[in-house]
Amino acid sequence: MKLIRHGQPGHEKTGVILADGRHIDVSAAFANYDEAFFASDGLTRLTEWLAANATSAPEVAAGARLGSPIARPSKIICIGLNYRDHAAESGMAEPAEPVVFFKATTALTGPDDGLVIPRSSEKTDWEVELAVVIGKTAKHVSYEDALSHVAGYVLHNDYSERAWQLERGGQWVKGKSADTYAPLGPWLATPDEIVDPHALRLWLTVNGEKKQDGNTANFIFNIPHVISYLSGFMTLLPGDVISTGTPAGVGLGFNPPQYLKPGDVIELGIDGLGSQRQVASAEA
Amino acid sequence: MKLIRHGQPGHEKTGVILADGRHIDVSAAFANYDEAFFASDGLTRLTEWLAANATSAPEVAAGARLGSPIARPSKIICIGLNYRDHAAESGMAEPAEPVVFFKATTALTGPDDGLVIPRSSEKTDWEVELAVVIGKTAKHVSYEDALSHVAGYVLHNDYSERAWQLERGGQWVKGKSADTYAPLGPWLATPDEIVDPHALRLWLTVNGEKKQDGNTANFIFNIPHVISYLSGFMTLLPGDVISTGTPAGVGLGFNPPQYLKPGDVIELGIDGLGSQRQVASAEA
Repeated sequence: MKLIRHGQPGHEKTGVILADGRHIDVSAAFANYDEAFFASDGLTRLTEWLAANATSAPEVAAGARLGSPIARPSKIICIGLNYRDHAAESGMAEPAEPVVFFKATTALTGPDDGLVIPRSSEKTDWEVELAVVIGKTAKHVSYEDALSHVAGYVLHNDYSERAWQLERGGQWVKGKSADTYAPLGPWLATPDEIVDPHALRLWLTVNGEKKQDGNTANFIFNIPHVISYLSGFMTLLPGDVISTGTPAGVGLGFNPPQYLKPGDVIELGIDGLGSQRQVASAEA
Repeated sequence: MKLIRHGQPGHEKTGVILADGRHIDVSAAFANYDEAFFASDGLTRLTEWLAANATSAPEVAAGARLGSPIARPSKIICIGLNYRDHAAESGMAEPAEPVVFFKATTALTGPDDGLVIPRSSEKTDWEVELAVVIGKTAKHVSYEDALSHVAGYVLHNDYSERAWQLERGGQWVKGKSADTYAPLGPWLATPDEIVDPHALRLWLTVNGEKKQDGNTANFIFNIPHVISYLSGFMTLLPGDVISTGTPAGVGLGFNPPQYLKPGDVIELGIDGLGSQRQVASAEA
């Protein structure tokens, strides 16, 4: 299944992309794709509802805006330096265990909403990532049981202000949390759609020029490892987002570094999870 | 006004402590103290409602459990090393600008619920802190306008696992986010209750022995500075929590360090914001 949320920011309605490509609205039966939805086995209910109602469900208006396919979660957890090539280009040692940081959930935005470069930002950078959405509460989950806690997979651009992240007094969260810094979508793909989440190509271009071209086969820590690891430090709730890190090719890694400016067009994608397109603008 | 939430975990109801000491239930009129409540000028509506209904409102059952006085916020933002004496005892330089980290909101718990020391934790430590609750959306807020965005003040114990925070691969969030690591309460005091938030004594004892005894007069960065600063990096939402740092006397600062063990009794308080009491236990 491919889950979407469509409509104006803050007023998104639930929808599904069917196998035949039709975008249908399911908001008559499902209020939101949020913690309550996932916690109450919403994916099973949605599957059953579609079997009976997909044919007669209303279609989403053509050209409708897509928002994040899930509602604001309790947390967006990111894994740093999780591809060998990216750790090397960042000039950082390959981590012995997952590097964990948070991103403010207020950074969440739709896949094509556009990037707003914050006032006084001079080093806004891109990071194409595979994000995992948690389907049921996870605490002290074993490696073997970890993937049973996954609701699905989604494309994420983990925008980062490198000066704020690295030059403003420790703790990366400061450079990860500006509004529009977390485009998510276009859709949440349930696990049955993704044959192997550890064999997905992911790429990113700026103004049509290829910057990142990696594969999740190159994770240092794979998805069950990350879920199991995190669940030993904190409780993961249904709907929580774990972003699994970015491959080489971020702006910080070029010599000299390359950062985004108003008018730049950023496009990115992952096998099976669609693509995003953001036009950068300056904050008013 | 003093706002409380009473009842079983996950099912707390709203209440108020009146000037005469009575604890009344206001859940018939106010569903929760959450983002929607603060965003819709809930404090003004609550004041007006109390003027008409306080006398006839039902009392909270004697001995009722208190939860966090606010619902789970979008973020718990913490300021590190914000007292000179604590920076010194931590062996860290006094910061040139605020050190910012997040705490998972799943760590939130009631003021007297007890501390669960996580499996494999060997360095669980205490931190008495003054927390600020945001009352209206704050983005690029000036120093002068910052305090008008405050809904109130509340006592917080920013429990920390020092090995996870400092010895497990960077980024403090890993050691700040275990369940029960963020007792909040007993009440949220609105600003009219607190004559000067920069002149509050705060203290903490373990098994009756004084460990921390500080005063918010010793902040490196005061409250309007912190709110204004944060609002330049991210949007603060109504109900968000900012914890302003801890004074000297944490376990890490002793020689040798002192950490908590099952059976320990932790008590803490701040002028005007009441006190908390946690009994430590081992995670099952």
